[in-house]
Amino acid sequence: MSDAGVLYGIGVGPGDPELLTLKAVRLVQAADVVAFPAAEDRRSIARGIVAAYLHEGQVEVPLRFPLAESSNPAQRFYDAAAEELAVHLEAGRNVAVLCEGDPLLYGTFMYFYTRLAPRFRCEIVPGISSITAGAAALGVPISYRNDVFAVIPATMPIEALRTRLRDADAAVILKVGRRFGAIRDVLRELGLVERARYIERATTSDERTLPLHEVDASTVPYFSMIVVPSAWTPE
Amino acid sequence: MSDAGVLYGIGVGPGDPELLTLKAVRLVQAADVVAFPAAEDRRSIARGIVAAYLHEGQVEVPLRFPLAESSNPAQRFYDAAAEELAVHLEAGRNVAVLCEGDPLLYGTFMYFYTRLAPRFRCEIVPGISSITAGAAALGVPISYRNDVFAVIPATMPIEALRTRLRDADAAVILKVGRRFGAIRDVLRELGLVERARYIERATTSDERTLPLHEVDASTVPYFSMIVVPSAWTPE
Repeated sequence: MSDAGVLYGIGVGPGDPELLTLKAVRLVQAADVVAFPAAEDRRSIARGIVAAYLHEGQVEVPLRFPLAESSNPAQRFYDAAAEELAVHLEAGRNVAVLCEGDPLLYGTFMYFYTRLAPRFRCEIVPGISSITAGAAALGVPISYRNDVFAVIPATMPIEALRTRLRDADAAVILKVGRRFGAIRDVLRELGLVERARYIERATTSDERTLPLHEVDASTVPYFSMIVVPSAWTPE
Repeated sequence: MSDAGVLYGIGVGPGDPELLTLKAVRLVQAADVVAFPAAEDRRSIARGIVAAYLHEGQVEVPLRFPLAESSNPAQRFYDAAAEELAVHLEAGRNVAVLCEGDPLLYGTFMYFYTRLAPRFRCEIVPGISSITAGAAALGVPISYRNDVFAVIPATMPIEALRTRLRDADAAVILKVGRRFGAIRDVLRELGLVERARYIERATTSDERTLPLHEVDASTVPYFSMIVVPSAWTPE
């Protein structure tokens, strides 16, 4: 165990490589093995963010996540992928798992973390979340003083989403995608549509911001968010 | 206006200088003027985080924030401090305002932003928030899938805090300080005290983590938080 490698969960931020932390850069460069979520064609957003810091001496492990809906195959996938990483860790190799945004907010890293943390030393490096990166790109302060700030996944049932939005002082709705139309209706109903702001693919070269009434619901990608800033204005 | 400087609101993260982003380092080094919140004795946490990147050619502007309670003097302070920064901006000097954590989450940067954004070009650089840095130091995943994640300032009335905690799937309570005892009582009442985790001064050399029942309420500093992670466990 003492000769085993360390598992690093590394937040690589929302897309702009300049939003990597110094610590993420150092640990990615030093890692023996770099693992990252990848699509079927091996393209990976997370790998792209750190590409300038990868080098030939490293083993790369693309992780092809199954869709969240099919839970049993997903578990088998996580078991197998965790075992693949465990082989490297047992051989004394440090493994960096790249995580878009932050590893502990709605990330897939936890599937590896719960499997491997009982057996290996783990360190988690926080990353810039799309939540604050999106607000920064929009130039919209989120929350002040006694505000309760709610992070709401767009994928939750619309009635529950309405209640959570109504009760929050400030909110960010994540991963809007095909739910955009229904969510804009809820924001209208709650009188929040003028205050809300929309952004997609924050900090990437494809970033786009629009007033909500100008958004074509049929074009909204998964990586998109709506910020509903606090009503309070600092004086 | 076109020859005016740019106002940068720069998130410098929770304390560890290695959690600075590459972009923050570049902009701090390049700034003509560096402004930062400072105590009466001129000590500044934010300045300490970037100290290695400051140099003699820069003008430093310590900002001594008044206490939030005294709102009228506070407004006069923000007016005067914003004017001091405006003089530099009008002279064509770029001004970096250092913000602990992230500039748009419960920060004081917005008092300058609301005053100066109508007159000058502004850019906001997101920073690692103590929220995710604290969770990373604790090794505690915060939220998954459809969880609503609530950020709750400890300073809000205790009854409201109880309701918000009860309704959230996952929560972080910020700036606990002297409210620790009352909040621990609420967590006990809601059956959350075993799941909750405590951390103070995350990522600094004085970082301390403890189970809640071991915390001496009289020693809890302002820079402290309680993480109540999601009850859901990834499989």
